[in-house]
Amino acid sequence: MLHESQQSQESHDFRQRVRTRTFTGPTAGHCGGYAQANLAIVPAEFAGDFLRFCVSNPRACPLLGVSEAGQWNIPALGRDLDVRIDVPGYNVYRHGELCEQPVDLRELWRDDLVTFAIGCSFSFEQMLAQEHIPLRHVDEGVNVPMYRTSIDNQRAGRFGGKLVVSMRPMSGAHAVRAVQITSRFPAVHGAPIHIGSPAALGIRDLSRPDYGDAVSIHEHEVPVFWACGVTPQSALESAKLPFAIAHRPGHMLMTDIPNASLAAL
Amino acid sequence: MLHESQQSQESHDFRQRVRTRTFTGPTAGHCGGYAQANLAIVPAEFAGDFLRFCVSNPRACPLLGVSEAGQWNIPALGRDLDVRIDVPGYNVYRHGELCEQPVDLRELWRDDLVTFAIGCSFSFEQMLAQEHIPLRHVDEGVNVPMYRTSIDNQRAGRFGGKLVVSMRPMSGAHAVRAVQITSRFPAVHGAPIHIGSPAALGIRDLSRPDYGDAVSIHEHEVPVFWACGVTPQSALESAKLPFAIAHRPGHMLMTDIPNASLAAL
Repeated sequence: MLHESQQSQESHDFRQRVRTRTFTGPTAGHCGGYAQANLAIVPAEFAGDFLRFCVSNPRACPLLGVSEAGQWNIPALGRDLDVRIDVPGYNVYRHGELCEQPVDLRELWRDDLVTFAIGCSFSFEQMLAQEHIPLRHVDEGVNVPMYRTSIDNQRAGRFGGKLVVSMRPMSGAHAVRAVQITSRFPAVHGAPIHIGSPAALGIRDLSRPDYGDAVSIHEHEVPVFWACGVTPQSALESAKLPFAIAHRPGHMLMTDIPNASLAAL
Repeated sequence: MLHESQQSQESHDFRQRVRTRTFTGPTAGHCGGYAQANLAIVPAEFAGDFLRFCVSNPRACPLLGVSEAGQWNIPALGRDLDVRIDVPGYNVYRHGELCEQPVDLRELWRDDLVTFAIGCSFSFEQMLAQEHIPLRHVDEGVNVPMYRTSIDNQRAGRFGGKLVVSMRPMSGAHAVRAVQITSRFPAVHGAPIHIGSPAALGIRDLSRPDYGDAVSIHEHEVPVFWACGVTPQSALESAKLPFAIAHRPGHMLMTDIPNASLAAL
């Protein structure tokens, strides 16, 4: 939970820039000390099942906060935060189909909407970068490669589907250190779920990710796989709810939570 | 350090069996809750450099205890412990050559000998087994495979040489968990130093270990490499001291230190 003293002018100011459309792009690399969140917004009638889906799949869906129905603030995530206007872009789904990509939800808002804020790998990437562990997708200026695995999520009501993972190739020594670092951050996906064989996860070809971009893998490197925040978005789509909203990929909600404060120890 | 209340009848009794030659074999699998130690015994004139070698190479040479010169007890390791007779077998080196393999050091003992007790992977293997992470060399009933790498140890006086590693193949998910578990135990080699490519460590062929026995590696498994307690023994041999003693491989010193008490957190 956020204490008054932890509240951040920097992340608060960033949200103001988003809100006023001064900032409109992907949020990677901004306010590096603060957690960004994946967003899932569902009608209250499905919120119980979606909450159960998240807590049953905590590696993919670590919850940073859940709103009261109809409320656009989540006080634990930031003062004056308004999920309707503080995200640079949204995906709106009707019956599982992506219908609109608005930049403002005020017109679409309903009194029964419940917002789920889910931890994002940007937080642990910050921790890896601080220890000079190179991130290939950052060095190559692309999105992290993500893959739909053959691993079933724990089902909850209509929400199920397959686990989606992100992959970062690195040296064997960096892989060890990356496990140690990310294990401290269960709120942002935590430790990798797998190192090494893509085939063991049902991934046929690392050069053909299902989401994001392929990256090069150097000699002697191992692929390291983390549970990914695209998993809940994928579950949301496949559940074919009459109405649901998520952030536009890469366009995250900036919170006032210092990444360092998410360390489990 | 060992508290009175932690002293163990079980490990104490085991040492009595060794001392009376009731037990004479390798110590793997005995008194599973207690730490076993690698032994290195050198004349005082080389003890300063060897101590510096250990503290400069803590992954390979984590010190559990060091004796006073001439003393055959290390109180931190166990009550009534006598390093001259409590180990089932010794290697005696003169000028780097293995000369004798006695089962008792009382005839050879000198007032200037300093004993180094170095943490052993048996301790962390116990922790891995408790979480049902299979250990291939245990399942196949052989010694763990060990390899001389191309990585130079930090030199201290005459002590140098290459890092020796042990290798355990496992699934990618078990590799992640093994990093987490062993990271808690820096006193017994701690986290792996590498996962994946043997070639990155200068290892040409996993099926031809330099020490121990080859084990099978299954599809989708990754080799996981830990710094190994053979490293100090190898440094001892290559230093060609006029006189030095080590335990016979696999024949370790049983201590009263509960493995669980070695957890860093």
